[in-house]
Amino acid sequence: MRYVFTLALPLFFSFFVRAQERPNVVVFLVDDMGWQDTSLPFWTEETPLNKRYHTPNMERLARQGVMFTNAYATPVCTPTRASLMTGMNAAHHGITNWTHVQKDTPTDKKEESLDIADWNYNGLSPVQDVPHSAYATPLPQLLKDHGYYTIHVGKAHWGPMGTPGANPLNMGFMVNVAGNNIGHPQSFRGEDNYGNIPGKATYNAVQGLAEYYGSSTFLTEALTLEALKALEAPVQNKQPFFLYLSHYAVHTPLQADPRFVQRYLDAGLDEIEARYASMIEGMDKSLGDVLNFLEKNGSVKNTIIIFMTDNGGLSLVPPRGGEAHTHNLPLRAGKGSVYEGGIRIPMIVRWDGVAVPGARADQYVIVEDVFPSILEMAGIRDYKTVQSVDGKSFVPLLRNPELEDGTRVLVWHFPNKWQPDGPGINYRSGSRRGPWKRGYDMRGGGGELDDLGADIGEQRDLSRKYPARARELAGLLSVQLRSWNAPMPVDRKTGKRLRMPDEW
Amino acid sequence: MRYVFTLALPLFFSFFVRAQERPNVVVFLVDDMGWQDTSLPFWTEETPLNKRYHTPNMERLARQGVMFTNAYATPVCTPTRASLMTGMNAAHHGITNWTHVQKDTPTDKKEESLDIADWNYNGLSPVQDVPHSAYATPLPQLLKDHGYYTIHVGKAHWGPMGTPGANPLNMGFMVNVAGNNIGHPQSFRGEDNYGNIPGKATYNAVQGLAEYYGSSTFLTEALTLEALKALEAPVQNKQPFFLYLSHYAVHTPLQADPRFVQRYLDAGLDEIEARYASMIEGMDKSLGDVLNFLEKNGSVKNTIIIFMTDNGGLSLVPPRGGEAHTHNLPLRAGKGSVYEGGIRIPMIVRWDGVAVPGARADQYVIVEDVFPSILEMAGIRDYKTVQSVDGKSFVPLLRNPELEDGTRVLVWHFPNKWQPDGPGINYRSGSRRGPWKRGYDMRGGGGELDDLGADIGEQRDLSRKYPARARELAGLLSVQLRSWNAPMPVDRKTGKRLRMPDEW
Repeated sequence: MRYVFTLALPLFFSFFVRAQERPNVVVFLVDDMGWQDTSLPFWTEETPLNKRYHTPNMERLARQGVMFTNAYATPVCTPTRASLMTGMNAAHHGITNWTHVQKDTPTDKKEESLDIADWNYNGLSPVQDVPHSAYATPLPQLLKDHGYYTIHVGKAHWGPMGTPGANPLNMGFMVNVAGNNIGHPQSFRGEDNYGNIPGKATYNAVQGLAEYYGSSTFLTEALTLEALKALEAPVQNKQPFFLYLSHYAVHTPLQADPRFVQRYLDAGLDEIEARYASMIEGMDKSLGDVLNFLEKNGSVKNTIIIFMTDNGGLSLVPPRGGEAHTHNLPLRAGKGSVYEGGIRIPMIVRWDGVAVPGARADQYVIVEDVFPSILEMAGIRDYKTVQSVDGKSFVPLLRNPELEDGTRVLVWHFPNKWQPDGPGINYRSGSRRGPWKRGYDMRGGGGELDDLGADIGEQRDLSRKYPARARELAGLLSVQLRSWNAPMPVDRKTGKRLRMPDEW
Repeated sequence: MRYVFTLALPLFFSFFVRAQERPNVVVFLVDDMGWQDTSLPFWTEETPLNKRYHTPNMERLARQGVMFTNAYATPVCTPTRASLMTGMNAAHHGITNWTHVQKDTPTDKKEESLDIADWNYNGLSPVQDVPHSAYATPLPQLLKDHGYYTIHVGKAHWGPMGTPGANPLNMGFMVNVAGNNIGHPQSFRGEDNYGNIPGKATYNAVQGLAEYYGSSTFLTEALTLEALKALEAPVQNKQPFFLYLSHYAVHTPLQADPRFVQRYLDAGLDEIEARYASMIEGMDKSLGDVLNFLEKNGSVKNTIIIFMTDNGGLSLVPPRGGEAHTHNLPLRAGKGSVYEGGIRIPMIVRWDGVAVPGARADQYVIVEDVFPSILEMAGIRDYKTVQSVDGKSFVPLLRNPELEDGTRVLVWHFPNKWQPDGPGINYRSGSRRGPWKRGYDMRGGGGELDDLGADIGEQRDLSRKYPARARELAGLLSVQLRSWNAPMPVDRKTGKRLRMPDEW
């Protein structure tokens, strides 16, 4: 015994103690939830949408952590999810649109005059040589390699079936519940077996949840229960864990979460919007359950919780109720758009003892920042990745939420056709520096200049008033896109890619 | 740092060092594979069936471990799987037949004169109060609670959808790939997405393997690849692991494993039997891959490998080729029967440094023995279970394969109607002591007495020659069944359960 003890001592010192010191990390990711789809105002004022929704657990989380009031994702889901896993901007990893359930299948809608951009429609790949995929070292792999217990629950959607990206275990997750190639569930209802009904199941039937078939367990609840089960082992063993709880809610199909819908019908919302609001509250209940679990077993003090969503709120009608492109007002447009309605997301980070409780950080951040932030939080410094990382750690903002860096340039790039044209939707790029945001329309060459400080709704184009600033931002955007070899659509007549903003 | 170090020292001593000492355990379970469906003879002589099949990795495993030549399961799959998880005899846990994909659905075929036995057709349940289920503390839960990293890959089939038994995470597994309520796959073919084709998927489509859809990866291979992925973390972290690799092969549908089928067609087997043989060889390749993985990373020396199957080889035509009830000759009958063809299984246990390499143990053992054996192997002595355990550890047999205990009584109990009547099939029980086996037909009251030492084919009923012995074994069987309150079918006319063997 003494012999073994002596031998194991260095191991103990290097692994076990360090493990004890390392914080756990929970990424709580919501699908298609807009910036104001919460009772927690991320703007300087409470909006009518904030008044509509009930998210007491987001409020609770915000009291204990830092709210990021200028947090961004990409316009649609897969690009955001790939950026989170790789630390790369979407224009860099080249997965600029959502990936199809089947491989070799671009999801671009047809556009007469254009051939599709050469984007990575086979998604993210942790192994080399998968055609049309982005090869990168995923975040959970690094965490696992450094002793973390890595858990995936819910929506993955990093790549199509028949590719390694369809399997969270290939990303470095040790546990996977319900994640694969699909981007939305066939049904949220246990009564529908989440889609798993003989003869009726599509590719979007959610897998791994047979325990709940035929029950009234809403998908959001089932995923929460499974996540808490998966956490038992690392909590018991005091192994640091990384939980990626990625809800299918509040993506379509918009179905009533029966536990919460009545309140919204009573408040006079139409049927569809009442369903949507009930899904938001069901998601919030899940957040509360995770917090309760962590508080009950005492691990909350050493657990970082990152709440975020993957793009702006969906604002197409149908499937939403009401009028299209209005669901994120005063933000312009919604999912799919490079306007704020499509990319601005609610984000909260709790880290007891580090993040200033109840603070607001106004510095703009973007989803690829999560990658270096989590590695910094985990104390992992000597890691190697095959990709070069674009994101920047937001950890300093947790300690000092007042910090501001108005020189940083953020970039969005959507060289695809997602749906019929709409405000800021299809073939658009954009860049932000300080309060200034420059849009770019690849087809027309135009580009607004917006002052987000004074005009969060992007209603007043100032590009003619400040042409030098507009040119400068367009130039920065162009330089960045070129350096990343960003995919661009191709003019069918000329066979050439469409122009960069500074090429007009 | 010094402070944390001091605090953690006792933890280190109690958990980490002990963890290092504990052996890993792999249960490699094959579905519906008969005693002779291998090139490794478990009888005293090589049979024609042994000559038909190619299982070099079973031979390799046997050279390094102990072969159990008199190992038993139950006549069908769920009872065996529940016994393995609980250490209980099937007559005791009351899951005497296979469980349906849907809950509250007994699988008994219709029998005019009988009402079905009150068996636990909702399967195994790790929580209380699920009607018609067996409440028990599952083996992986105990292993997990004692620091093991527990992995489930493949077929679970402990209970129907809509019950906790449908989810391996509820059994104490930390990782689950592809296991739920189903008892066989819709398809073994990657080209068929294992059944996951929109509009065509049944409940039996295998979940969790989207990575391989559309590829030529046979299900057996996909499960093996996933199992090896899941092993990476515990191997790297030096955490003791329990891998339950439970192949869907060689259950129906009988489909050619394209890597191996040609050899059997060339040997003159009919199409169906060539497919079956190719599935056997694919399973054996999986065993070899697991051994290679463990050897390559050096963990094989501290890893126990238990190879076994869940019942005798299927011998119904169709789906098998040839003539019904002949596929296990010289053993009588096949799956579903209490004759040897239905319950005798190939079993090999390798434990380097403990099990005598290349030895044969002739002592009869049964599947519920796996539970106490693995706990003993893992050094877990202070465990609590809600059930009382019937199995007996076979660890002494590994150290001394010559050991014999002719006084032990084994019991089989099948108070159900599985398929149309056949030899030893439906409403049968049986008991064995020493070489003597007593059958019992619940409907007729008859019961053979066989001397397995002289007559492994159970062709010569000796009950008239040795009436006292026959009576004694029937009495022992009755006492045991009564003490377990074993389910019995009910005479529809009288409303009374059928008689125990000693009640005639």
